[in-house]
Amino acid sequence: MIKELAEYEKALSSVHATEQSLRQTLCLAPHAGAAPSGAGYAKTLILRLPATEGGAVVGMALYFNNYSTWRAAPGVYLEDLFVREGYRKRGYGTLLLKALAKEVKRIGGARLEWCCLRWNESSLKFYRSIGAQEQHDWITLRTDGEALERLARDAEAAPAHVNVGPDEVKSEDA
Amino acid sequence: MIKELAEYEKALSSVHATEQSLRQTLCLAPHAGAAPSGAGYAKTLILRLPATEGGAVVGMALYFNNYSTWRAAPGVYLEDLFVREGYRKRGYGTLLLKALAKEVKRIGGARLEWCCLRWNESSLKFYRSIGAQEQHDWITLRTDGEALERLARDAEAAPAHVNVGPDEVKSEDA
Repeated sequence: MIKELAEYEKALSSVHATEQSLRQTLCLAPHAGAAPSGAGYAKTLILRLPATEGGAVVGMALYFNNYSTWRAAPGVYLEDLFVREGYRKRGYGTLLLKALAKEVKRIGGARLEWCCLRWNESSLKFYRSIGAQEQHDWITLRTDGEALERLARDAEAAPAHVNVGPDEVKSEDA
Repeated sequence: MIKELAEYEKALSSVHATEQSLRQTLCLAPHAGAAPSGAGYAKTLILRLPATEGGAVVGMALYFNNYSTWRAAPGVYLEDLFVREGYRKRGYGTLLLKALAKEVKRIGGARLEWCCLRWNESSLKFYRSIGAQEQHDWITLRTDGEALERLARDAEAAPAHVNVGPDEVKSEDA
């Protein structure tokens, strides 16, 4: 389904994921008695028809927890939402979004967020119809590739007199 | 510092976080022998001057792990970057970004991402100077408040014949 989504987004060549790398990084729920595996950086919801209707996997949502500092509460960030061709226009996408909204409530969270390609007007229209708000005031910045390597290398050479590291939140800082 | 940042962003009244709610939701690293606590939805980097220079806390970065499906790799999403007034223009912000870039490499990740207010041209200029790319093709959607409640309630009433839930990634799906 990841490859099918990439085709839909016209970017199949960008998919470097393999079954093994997905297993190593995703949080896969127990299945047929197997223990959870992977580093758990993201989680999946799989939409599957019941066995009596053929048991087909018709869609998925891949998500991770984000965080709102001002609310001191987690949220859900939806990285990928996908319904297979042939199963669209039946409300399965909405069903996945509803399941994610329920997950937000379950963890005591406040927000369900995701990104959408600006040219995808039909999706934007659908998202507006369920009450999602476009965050026009914000722009996403990304550092990867050589720029990321350079920054990381520079960190090694950072002045030794500053202590950068995880530390406890103290009352006077919070 | 969270409150100071909110003042800078002209939104102090939006801060509902308390020391207790932060403790319950953040991953706070061991400090003076104390065990890590909290649900660990996000992590902090604290920038502190050495004791010989007064030991002042001068800045912080609050971040969580995001995920790139196509790369099957985690990344770092920087939720808040803050350097206290009186300590700005000394490179401490860059130092925090470098430490985060190093963290991305440490976890085998590929991306460091964050959002910036569109009107904050001086910050955008700085981010461009370190190689960050603005993601103009994407727009963030957010569902919270009543819209989120409605979606979550609807999930309860979802048709019972569709199995929504974490499931194993199987070779035929990936």
